[in-house]
Amino acid sequence: MSTPQGNEFPFAGAEAPASERRDATSRLETPRAWVLWLGVATVSGLGSGIARADEGMWTFDNFPKDLVESRYGFAPSDEWLDTVRAASVRLGNGCSGSFVSKRGLILTNHHCVLRCVQQLSTADENLVQSGFYAEKMEDERRCPGLEVNRLESIEDVTERVAKATEGKKGETYVSAKNAVIADIESGCGSDETTRCDVVELYGGGLHHLYRYRRFQDVRLVFAPSVKAAFFGGDPDNFNFPRYAFDAAFLRPRVDDRAVRVKEYLRWSKKGVDDGDLVFVSGHPGRTNRLKTVAELEYLRDWGLPEVLLRLAEERGLLAQFSRASNENERIARGRLFGVENGLKALQGRRAALADDTFFGTLVEAETDFRGKLAGDDETLEAFREIAEAMERYRVIRTDLRYKERHRNYGSKLFGHALDLVRWKEEQQKPNADRLPEYAEAKKPALKAGITSAAPIYPSLEQTLLGHYFTRLRADLGPDDPFVKAVLGDEAPFALAERLVKETRLADPELREKWFDDPVSLEVDADPMLKLAKVISDAGREIRSVFEDEIESVVDRARAKIADARFRIYGTETYPDATFSLRLSFGTVKGFPDRGKEVPPFTRVRGLYERATGNEPFALSPRWKEKKDAIDLSTPMNFVTTNDIIGGNSGSPAINRDGRIVGLVFDGNIHSLGGDFGFDPRVNRAVSVDVRVIREGLHEVYGAKRLLKEIR
Amino acid sequence: MSTPQGNEFPFAGAEAPASERRDATSRLETPRAWVLWLGVATVSGLGSGIARADEGMWTFDNFPKDLVESRYGFAPSDEWLDTVRAASVRLGNGCSGSFVSKRGLILTNHHCVLRCVQQLSTADENLVQSGFYAEKMEDERRCPGLEVNRLESIEDVTERVAKATEGKKGETYVSAKNAVIADIESGCGSDETTRCDVVELYGGGLHHLYRYRRFQDVRLVFAPSVKAAFFGGDPDNFNFPRYAFDAAFLRPRVDDRAVRVKEYLRWSKKGVDDGDLVFVSGHPGRTNRLKTVAELEYLRDWGLPEVLLRLAEERGLLAQFSRASNENERIARGRLFGVENGLKALQGRRAALADDTFFGTLVEAETDFRGKLAGDDETLEAFREIAEAMERYRVIRTDLRYKERHRNYGSKLFGHALDLVRWKEEQQKPNADRLPEYAEAKKPALKAGITSAAPIYPSLEQTLLGHYFTRLRADLGPDDPFVKAVLGDEAPFALAERLVKETRLADPELREKWFDDPVSLEVDADPMLKLAKVISDAGREIRSVFEDEIESVVDRARAKIADARFRIYGTETYPDATFSLRLSFGTVKGFPDRGKEVPPFTRVRGLYERATGNEPFALSPRWKEKKDAIDLSTPMNFVTTNDIIGGNSGSPAINRDGRIVGLVFDGNIHSLGGDFGFDPRVNRAVSVDVRVIREGLHEVYGAKRLLKEIR
Repeated sequence: MSTPQGNEFPFAGAEAPASERRDATSRLETPRAWVLWLGVATVSGLGSGIARADEGMWTFDNFPKDLVESRYGFAPSDEWLDTVRAASVRLGNGCSGSFVSKRGLILTNHHCVLRCVQQLSTADENLVQSGFYAEKMEDERRCPGLEVNRLESIEDVTERVAKATEGKKGETYVSAKNAVIADIESGCGSDETTRCDVVELYGGGLHHLYRYRRFQDVRLVFAPSVKAAFFGGDPDNFNFPRYAFDAAFLRPRVDDRAVRVKEYLRWSKKGVDDGDLVFVSGHPGRTNRLKTVAELEYLRDWGLPEVLLRLAEERGLLAQFSRASNENERIARGRLFGVENGLKALQGRRAALADDTFFGTLVEAETDFRGKLAGDDETLEAFREIAEAMERYRVIRTDLRYKERHRNYGSKLFGHALDLVRWKEEQQKPNADRLPEYAEAKKPALKAGITSAAPIYPSLEQTLLGHYFTRLRADLGPDDPFVKAVLGDEAPFALAERLVKETRLADPELREKWFDDPVSLEVDADPMLKLAKVISDAGREIRSVFEDEIESVVDRARAKIADARFRIYGTETYPDATFSLRLSFGTVKGFPDRGKEVPPFTRVRGLYERATGNEPFALSPRWKEKKDAIDLSTPMNFVTTNDIIGGNSGSPAINRDGRIVGLVFDGNIHSLGGDFGFDPRVNRAVSVDVRVIREGLHEVYGAKRLLKEIR
Repeated sequence: MSTPQGNEFPFAGAEAPASERRDATSRLETPRAWVLWLGVATVSGLGSGIARADEGMWTFDNFPKDLVESRYGFAPSDEWLDTVRAASVRLGNGCSGSFVSKRGLILTNHHCVLRCVQQLSTADENLVQSGFYAEKMEDERRCPGLEVNRLESIEDVTERVAKATEGKKGETYVSAKNAVIADIESGCGSDETTRCDVVELYGGGLHHLYRYRRFQDVRLVFAPSVKAAFFGGDPDNFNFPRYAFDAAFLRPRVDDRAVRVKEYLRWSKKGVDDGDLVFVSGHPGRTNRLKTVAELEYLRDWGLPEVLLRLAEERGLLAQFSRASNENERIARGRLFGVENGLKALQGRRAALADDTFFGTLVEAETDFRGKLAGDDETLEAFREIAEAMERYRVIRTDLRYKERHRNYGSKLFGHALDLVRWKEEQQKPNADRLPEYAEAKKPALKAGITSAAPIYPSLEQTLLGHYFTRLRADLGPDDPFVKAVLGDEAPFALAERLVKETRLADPELREKWFDDPVSLEVDADPMLKLAKVISDAGREIRSVFEDEIESVVDRARAKIADARFRIYGTETYPDATFSLRLSFGTVKGFPDRGKEVPPFTRVRGLYERATGNEPFALSPRWKEKKDAIDLSTPMNFVTTNDIIGGNSGSPAINRDGRIVGLVFDGNIHSLGGDFGFDPRVNRAVSVDVRVIREGLHEVYGAKRLLKEIR
């Protein structure tokens, strides 16, 4: 499924959105802001084959109404835009959604609420399998920790950031930027009902402060069985044709009463046809479309292949672990899902970059842009600086990976150990001097993570940690002093077993005590904390090399390039994705695949034809039972040319009338290249058709209360 | 360790030497013959940074004596060359070796005889762990199935091959070539003591018939514990500094008496120093140095990354399988070793191709060569044809992989099923019309494989087969008709379990009966045979597409290019590796790594310093015990600039006097790029020093009889 930004997707911890990583070294690969130069190519007609596509993740205040009008004879009015904007929401776990009733009913994906469904399950009541439906409003159940945000205001803070970082270099630059952002965010009035994020747009050309209304009491209203929502499982993930009922409903409460909203989206009864114009409103997480060719080459040749190998190995390991017993299957499922999802997503990205035609277009676009920079030596020099930084990155990449970036390979205990060790050190510093992930504003989330009562499974912990130690030794070499410091004379899995057995970190109350009173944390008294300290120290060292010699260099060079773009194109184009609200436009349209044309719609009939009775192609019992009742010709899923990316999961697909026609839940395999550029030939967003949602709620789930509300 | 060509190295079955694959579709990636254009660059001074290196895998009849003379003031005489040639042997499992006494004692690597040592072990006597030494000649034990070949004569058959394939295209071309080669080989007098191979040299510029003396009764004389031979295990594999005692001795018998040989290599007492000239005689398996840039790009972007992902996933799976029990560890060890070895080897190759500097040199060399071809439109067109074939290859690669190329993912039962099904069909055809791997000349080896009594472990079979089915569905997609035909409605692992349980193929006698009397093979009566038929039929189809549209196109285009090279350069250069006898020259020399200079020698002291007591850094009990007796300053392993590749394992390293100074057992990680071109900055061969072999035999093993023989 389209990878949302949520931290319930474990792979994300590896090579994924900055928004959900605590590790600031990740920024280079997930910068907060870039201009999309393919977008530039589109708007100004520079590009070659890719130009004039339905491309763009546009901000609402800069939507290209004229362009859409000229192409489709329809332009959304300001009122249309205002309503859609106010009806759109962001889920704290990295998904999107929309209000669909005045009582605050939210439509989103099942996979965006899966974690909540798991948490609400008990030994006696497996809601993941059975699904959930609240017959009455008072039966709606609270999703632990799930937060919903609605954008309330945007403020330009470009000047403040520029002033604070002016003339600074290296580590000093990074610190100054972290400090001013921490300051702005904490001064905006963050509290129980307000959230503030500084968003970098146009590669630093603009800094905007986004202020959101927070809803922290969010109730689960409806979720189908995972068998219906994720029919086809990993094999179908990122693929089309598709037969998934990946829909769910939530509802925020304020003061224990359902919220009332003025703006919400109405339902379309007739749905869409092939060729119809469709808008998608949501929160695309990040794109790498501004990266220079040197950065993309690094990603293509080193970054992606090496992360893929790690994920592939972990998939083999977890799959085999899972087959040992039902219990193992259960405890490893979450991480295995994340690993498989990440593997597929990153494979798609690698394939896009390895595609000569696609990559050639990216190279051509950069060449065109550089052509326009003739005489602007400073900006041209910036390209060279980035290329040199990439050379340096290559040299330190393996150390950076093992010492700082992927520090625990999924072991929760070890993750807690690392956080506690760092927190003890960081909380003594002034807020502005801290590593950003330990800044005061992050404290509540940090504490929630460290003190989480989520179960910890020793066997899985040992396996993941032993695997990390094994890879560490293999890739850095047994003679590396860091490897010797970590392993001593112990074998990787023996060490992992001992640490998991001897540590006291499994106790959440103890972790809470240590977090609240860091002085009481005796690092040397616990073998896992002791090792975490060794790794944390080595991590700080390599991280500072990274920040000083690579991140800050790239950051500044990128800002120069972004300035030049901004000077040339201004807001004629759209900024890269930053998990902030965007609107895209496109049409319902099939695509070519392996020499054949894939039609844009699937129908319910196909679901039944495709069911084998075995996972992941087993029907849910309800759908099996109701086969005769349901209209088999109902459209099930469809594809459109909208430009989306991970984070758009749960976005409404909307027609000219501002009515919901579908629910975005994935992109096809080619959409993964959308990380780097939009390829209109093959890049498609995948939606659940509203008609099957209605039909399903009616015939399969008998969800009358819901149907009445969304009419 | 330097990957030999042997089929005991399971990874080889995936993406490895043609010499040990039965599957002819492998040829494109492991062509039998190419000119090395970097070699061309060297000799004629065309190249850039890489020129003038100690590069080349030279045939004995075309050794560049003058070049060596001019560079090192020494030229081997004809007598020197004759002796070394006659003292060199090839092991049937893909290794090299040399006669070191007149009674036919052969020095080779421990890893080249490991399978024999395993086979000679019993429940009571684990020779892999304890090592083996025959105190008396009559105690020497026969290695099952191990064969030794000594090159006796070479005949030029270029004309016959050219005549038979003249004017042919596509499948017809492939068939004609297969037919004439089968004919030449079977007409050369192959029997119990003679083996004949047609070897393609200079990319088809020459075809030579190599005739070998076969020794089929080969005895194990000495093998150390695997703990000493493979100290450092997978982490150290392909790395240096190194501390491995990877040596073993064999001895062929004829009529149950030790063979007597005229030519053998004497031992050097003083060994070598830094900077000394060293020759290596052996059988490099294959190189990809003639590949055009289009082919290398395919390998870099698609071929290697995808095989690597498969191997990484299998490593995770097998490592986890192995940890479940000691028994699991034992039964999976062989394949896990092969997977790890392959993973490391192919990662090194991918890294070499992804290195801009290295790849740039390859591109430059091709550009230079094409520059010389101005006006030769036919040859220039050949480059274009290959590039187009690679485009086509990309489209069918996934189908080819799952349907024909990696057919069993290591399941022995399923491998037997596929062979039996094909054999039944192929043996009815005239020899010349058969798939080459089922030609009459291959029958003995085929039968030996199918009827082998090697144990089959159901749990491992199910795991590997289930994994294959899982990958198949994931990569081809659940809607693919082939996937549906294979899986039906069953889940991958359920199908694997059922097949392994229900098949009768585990019985070697039954397999022998079926092989000898193919009519009695009722394919429909056994579920595994039935499925093998489905896969075999699909495999034939895609294979014929591959042969027709890719292999034959590339083959012919390559021959044109090779002709042009041969016209320009003749035998001024060396032919690419073809697992035929070659001689290389170089010097003892360290290399730079991660910013430091690695010295060329390690000493025994380092072995003891490095031992942790835990695998794979645990000392063998004998070495532990004898620490005080052994001279710790004895040189242990060393590196030289000789140009070697997999298949050179067990090669003697020889000084000017024709005496053995070392035993090649590996290349460093940078040597893996040697597949595509020789990089003198960093490519190194790794040898066991003869001085530690003598010291070890004397102090650690008390092998007096051996020491007396090799004095």
